[in-house]
Amino acid sequence: MLRSLAFDADDTLWHNETHYAETQEAFRALLRDYHDDAWIDARLHDTEMRNLGHYGYGIKGFTLSMIETALELTEDRLDGAGIRQVVDLGKAMLAKPVEPMPGVTEVLQELSRSFDLMLITKGDLFDQETKLARSGLGTHFSKVEIVSEKDEATYAAILARHGIAPQSFTMVGNSVRSDILPVLALGARAVHIPYALTWAHEAVASPLEAPFPVLASIRELPALLRSW
Amino acid sequence: MLRSLAFDADDTLWHNETHYAETQEAFRALLRDYHDDAWIDARLHDTEMRNLGHYGYGIKGFTLSMIETALELTEDRLDGAGIRQVVDLGKAMLAKPVEPMPGVTEVLQELSRSFDLMLITKGDLFDQETKLARSGLGTHFSKVEIVSEKDEATYAAILARHGIAPQSFTMVGNSVRSDILPVLALGARAVHIPYALTWAHEAVASPLEAPFPVLASIRELPALLRSW
Repeated sequence: MLRSLAFDADDTLWHNETHYAETQEAFRALLRDYHDDAWIDARLHDTEMRNLGHYGYGIKGFTLSMIETALELTEDRLDGAGIRQVVDLGKAMLAKPVEPMPGVTEVLQELSRSFDLMLITKGDLFDQETKLARSGLGTHFSKVEIVSEKDEATYAAILARHGIAPQSFTMVGNSVRSDILPVLALGARAVHIPYALTWAHEAVASPLEAPFPVLASIRELPALLRSW
Repeated sequence: MLRSLAFDADDTLWHNETHYAETQEAFRALLRDYHDDAWIDARLHDTEMRNLGHYGYGIKGFTLSMIETALELTEDRLDGAGIRQVVDLGKAMLAKPVEPMPGVTEVLQELSRSFDLMLITKGDLFDQETKLARSGLGTHFSKVEIVSEKDEATYAAILARHGIAPQSFTMVGNSVRSDILPVLALGARAVHIPYALTWAHEAVASPLEAPFPVLASIRELPALLRSW
């Protein structure tokens, strides 16, 4: 029987946080006459956190949070053309090409011969489906799970639904909070492949000695799996 | 073996289009100094359709489309306070209570004794999950499928994933386009319970004699199913 190997998508298979960072830089530029960068960043982060319960994760909610922050920070003085620029920043993010990171396509191809590959990703259903389609990676995965939160209960439900025992399940991702800790808590395995940027909301204090493998690139994954 | 009975959610189990209609009325009021109602409605509909490929279905995309339409219709003259009102209209929609329509709770309770009940709903993952949670109806369903489009391929994939034969599957919903026609095309059964309002995008010409049962209320469903 094939063991199950599941991958996170954003910042594990393709770039995501980079697009947010680029957009946030353009947003700062729009408001630089009113406030300094650190203050703009802090207010945007607060708005995002306050809105998470209304909007969930994803680009549409982020765009609405940028609009709200821009109005707050300019005391409603930002004009229509400015608001339109913020709307267009969001649309540009949605239209960004989805390019697999180096090594991803080859490694998935190789591993699909010995594992049942799954994709487990958090976020907006429509965003994630279209990103997967644009990435060209869809054919490698026998199962795709798009969820609104990645916690222990979510992983437990996914494993139960597919009849997968935790001992035969491994999760690979860039977020210690979402991809690693809840999976280890279930008695399954997890492999951390850090990304250069971590969204503040996903950041957790890193243990000095991680009780899970940490790889510099997905290219190192097949050798690790062979060593188990 | 239990037969599978699947329900649409918005406008089948709880009100949805009514909230859009109320919000759209408030949106018209905001722009009434600039344009007449019919023109506002037509421009908003065009923006929504143009943005469907960017945003998919759901309240966040609708809110962004209202903002874009408001800027277009005022040639960017709508001020910050006006934009803030549109953002707040969207948030108010997201916070609306989700009350099951009359009869829904009792009928689901009764039918769950003889059928395996599923929920199959289209829209924003986060919206739909929180609506189901707020509705209190979640416990009646053994399976919940939130999808980005309801066409023949989507239904075929759902049936295949759960190993359900089309002959033992019945779908109940308010949209001929999304809940009835693609299901009949697969050789399964479908029951139409029209809602008072139909979103222009979902409207299809109604056949003179519908080749599927049309009920006035979900309360009529148990008797229909017993008659089969």
